[in-house]
Amino acid sequence: LDYQHVQVPFEITLWIMLASLAKIGFHLYNKLPSVVPESCLLIFVGLIMGGIIYGLNDRSPPVMDSDIFFLYLLPPIVLDAGYFMPSRPFFENIGTILLYAVVGTIWNVFGIGFSLYGICQVKAFQLQDVSLLHNLLFGSLIAAVDPVAVLAVFEEIHVNEKLHILVFGESLLNDAVTVVLYKLFRSFCEMPTIKSVDVFAGVGQFFVVGLGGILVGLSFGFTAAFTTRFTKDIRVIEPLFVFLYSYLSYLTAEMFHLSGIVAIISCAMGMKRYVEANISLKSHTTVKYFMKMWSSVSDTLIFIFLGVSTIGENHEWNWPYICFTVIFCLIWRALGVLVLTFFVNRFHVNTITSKDQFIIAYGGLRGAICFSLVFLLPDFHRKKLFIAATTVVILFTVFIQGMTIRPLVDLLAVKRKRESAPTVGEQIHIRFLDHLLAGIEDISGHWGQYYWKDKLEYFNSKYLQKILLREYDQPKSSIVLLYEKLERKHAIELAQAGQLGHGPAHPSFLCSAFLCSSSDRTVITDQKLEDTPNPDVLDNMQEILARNLYRIRRTGPAYNRHTLPGDSEPTEQAKEILILRHKSL
Amino acid sequence: LDYQHVQVPFEITLWIMLASLAKIGFHLYNKLPSVVPESCLLIFVGLIMGGIIYGLNDRSPPVMDSDIFFLYLLPPIVLDAGYFMPSRPFFENIGTILLYAVVGTIWNVFGIGFSLYGICQVKAFQLQDVSLLHNLLFGSLIAAVDPVAVLAVFEEIHVNEKLHILVFGESLLNDAVTVVLYKLFRSFCEMPTIKSVDVFAGVGQFFVVGLGGILVGLSFGFTAAFTTRFTKDIRVIEPLFVFLYSYLSYLTAEMFHLSGIVAIISCAMGMKRYVEANISLKSHTTVKYFMKMWSSVSDTLIFIFLGVSTIGENHEWNWPYICFTVIFCLIWRALGVLVLTFFVNRFHVNTITSKDQFIIAYGGLRGAICFSLVFLLPDFHRKKLFIAATTVVILFTVFIQGMTIRPLVDLLAVKRKRESAPTVGEQIHIRFLDHLLAGIEDISGHWGQYYWKDKLEYFNSKYLQKILLREYDQPKSSIVLLYEKLERKHAIELAQAGQLGHGPAHPSFLCSAFLCSSSDRTVITDQKLEDTPNPDVLDNMQEILARNLYRIRRTGPAYNRHTLPGDSEPTEQAKEILILRHKSL
Repeated sequence: LDYQHVQVPFEITLWIMLASLAKIGFHLYNKLPSVVPESCLLIFVGLIMGGIIYGLNDRSPPVMDSDIFFLYLLPPIVLDAGYFMPSRPFFENIGTILLYAVVGTIWNVFGIGFSLYGICQVKAFQLQDVSLLHNLLFGSLIAAVDPVAVLAVFEEIHVNEKLHILVFGESLLNDAVTVVLYKLFRSFCEMPTIKSVDVFAGVGQFFVVGLGGILVGLSFGFTAAFTTRFTKDIRVIEPLFVFLYSYLSYLTAEMFHLSGIVAIISCAMGMKRYVEANISLKSHTTVKYFMKMWSSVSDTLIFIFLGVSTIGENHEWNWPYICFTVIFCLIWRALGVLVLTFFVNRFHVNTITSKDQFIIAYGGLRGAICFSLVFLLPDFHRKKLFIAATTVVILFTVFIQGMTIRPLVDLLAVKRKRESAPTVGEQIHIRFLDHLLAGIEDISGHWGQYYWKDKLEYFNSKYLQKILLREYDQPKSSIVLLYEKLERKHAIELAQAGQLGHGPAHPSFLCSAFLCSSSDRTVITDQKLEDTPNPDVLDNMQEILARNLYRIRRTGPAYNRHTLPGDSEPTEQAKEILILRHKSL
Repeated sequence: LDYQHVQVPFEITLWIMLASLAKIGFHLYNKLPSVVPESCLLIFVGLIMGGIIYGLNDRSPPVMDSDIFFLYLLPPIVLDAGYFMPSRPFFENIGTILLYAVVGTIWNVFGIGFSLYGICQVKAFQLQDVSLLHNLLFGSLIAAVDPVAVLAVFEEIHVNEKLHILVFGESLLNDAVTVVLYKLFRSFCEMPTIKSVDVFAGVGQFFVVGLGGILVGLSFGFTAAFTTRFTKDIRVIEPLFVFLYSYLSYLTAEMFHLSGIVAIISCAMGMKRYVEANISLKSHTTVKYFMKMWSSVSDTLIFIFLGVSTIGENHEWNWPYICFTVIFCLIWRALGVLVLTFFVNRFHVNTITSKDQFIIAYGGLRGAICFSLVFLLPDFHRKKLFIAATTVVILFTVFIQGMTIRPLVDLLAVKRKRESAPTVGEQIHIRFLDHLLAGIEDISGHWGQYYWKDKLEYFNSKYLQKILLREYDQPKSSIVLLYEKLERKHAIELAQAGQLGHGPAHPSFLCSAFLCSSSDRTVITDQKLEDTPNPDVLDNMQEILARNLYRIRRTGPAYNRHTLPGDSEPTEQAKEILILRHKSL
């Protein structure tokens, strides 16, 4: 037996296996995940594992290594989050998200820090030796909402898209603030005296860390898109580049002490559109699937490790400090959300309701980032107290808040995510309004959201697409794409039912698919179809649509505010239509 | 700047990136890969990289770590090889492959070892201090054909399937022999005296190492299949299990000093069938794609590292020893192939031609396995000579043989792989013959290949499938599956051409697809179809086929030698046909 030789990969594989099997186990009993969030169950498994290790070895089980967490476990989750980020709601609410993430986090850090310092002054609690700076340092690591924990809980409760993006976006973007404040206070702790220059440098760092992260991320993202231009002959390594470049962006940002989370998110959001156009469909499936798989495993491992690391002798128990930490975390977050939302609502038509505010405040879960940061603290005599307080806050938020948030959402009747995709009609409407608003903003000279979006789109189609895409083509309208997809799906369904080519079996399928919404279409059954008044008319419509869409699909002349209709060679199109009409006669 | 912190993942990512970019680079110039095999180009890139590192640092560049090679780079390639192994030709030629792999490798080891020992006795060469045992040890590591190198070259030259599986199968299965002989000679080198008991123990080890590997692999494979029974609700981690279990089988085998390569191949071949039936289509695409991607990257890294490691001061040059090593490697392999094939051909009707024999002998490429093994040698004063000789043999085989094998295959007009898939007619024929031969063997009491295959198939459908598959169902006949696939493809083509649902546009498509071969079908154009004599008859046939196949597809009553036709509820089927006929009237 030569265990030494294979130990490292063997143990890693076994941990991943344990995590995956635990996941399967929960899902075998359908009722369990609907009551208790998976994150709680996983922490519970971790606690048991930790207990077993502690019982067998009679010493504290190994603590989750902060390096492993930040270098290997966190990036897949953030990459997944960034890649599948719904960009429209994100950019629509970017102002609010940034306000919560920057001002809200600072508010929480100082609120928690100062009030805990106040508690430390009470002589009965025996905490006078914890300085203000240490309290602020503790505040900086405990204040930040954790994206992993938030994602794990919010993915299961299906609140409406805006609420989700507000909480989740905040949890992602507050990384820049947390990194700066945490490093600032940590270096202050080690400095003999603090000059006002240092404080100003700290404020300046916010911008460097945040904007630097975006810059690093976008440059790697565009390089990735550019690289996939040349992978046509070697499709099999395409998915690799998505992972390699985004991971490099994270590592590079971390190397320069910028925000790695912000970098990897910008990278993923920047590359997504171009990479998807360049790579093959199978590569795309692999990218999506593997990203989900990887982040799911990372997520599982993080929660299990969190459980394992909780067991042990790293803790110093002090009732008042720990209780007040939990209370202050709740109070300051609630206050912050109330105050900030008050300002946000004054400038927006589409306000955040008080129910939503409650869920935002209540959804401020803490997780493994706090936990890793507290272990990274420099050694000082109260570190174990901080570890204990952090553990309690994490367990409290994940267990108590995580388990009660679903019943609360039900109870308050918080607006849920709509189950169905937007209909084609809605899509047309939204796009029309976008163009209209961009035009209005342009005319009125107001540089609003729509104006910038339109300019960006113009810049994208004028320059970026030409550089980054292999086959630069007028982009197909999303409606035409949808039509194609429906037609393909319909064809496969027909083939599976063995009814292909037996005359027009469902004469109104196509046009109903096109005229009605995509979600409606799936519930149309044969019975319904027979109610349709005049099959001949529908048949005719379908014929016309199919013939003409054939041409549309081939050229994809999407409407563009910056080109005139004359640009798209009308003579050729007319010729094509003539030929088709001639054929059909 | 905090490089220390991210160094390990950063450098790994950069190496993978370099490898992938090099791969893209070659494929940008289409002419290059058609002349020079990719493996040569990659070694060349590695040589340049090594030269740069050597020039900059003025010391030998880092040598490929044997642990990294055996634990991280080799498993993905072998897993890929095992998973995509064409099982029919492999099992049809298993006897020949084992003969080459076991007897052939032993022959080469002792041949090369003894004749190099003879060379060492020549006083002029100054090699008298190299003992017989050391020569045999060297022979054991240099004799084995390398699967990575063979795969890299043979995948590009497209020789016929049998020839390919003979060379490739040998290169995979000789691992067991190499492991045993290498470890045996290494322990002999350290023993003061060798007893005859030790030699017998060595012979016994062959079976333990080989069969143990198969056992470990199969048990992990079946566990993997069993696990995927329960992943229905959590599709996203399905692909993970394929990788985790096969990697665990490799590590476990290595841990017990069994053959890891044999284990991972058995695991992959054992699980493939059941896992594919259990997991979703997208999971399957991800598994296949990721396996290919991973093995491709590993392969690239191995060749680049091989190049990098060649540069440096690890070499001791001795012209006669090195030249004779190359010559003996060639001669003994050629002799071995000739002698073994003579025996093989006496017992087979389908003989191995002399051209094939030449390619088998010439295709005996050495690669990174030899290289890693030579660095794992215990330190002794001639180790650097062995390293130099191994490097030269690898470079000679990969560059000279690898680059000339394609022109030689052309020159000799070696039978190539057929480009097209077997037609449906052929498939029916093959299956019919299989059943016939199994029956004949059964009656005549001859326990041949077909008899065992049939018994295995019976055992599989009687027990294994019931345990390992989620939805145990009569397996669909491959012809019905093909028909379904063609129909789906046809439907998508129709949808893309915008001709879905416009009456029977191509009346004879379906039946021609069914009656003709699958490969023929793709070249049938509209022009050809119009030549078909009577569209009405064809239309009718198609109607009948489609209606009846509908039923077939739903139950999939595959022919089975062990069940009577009466088993499959004929009344229900008859009723269904009646209803369908009634409808169509």
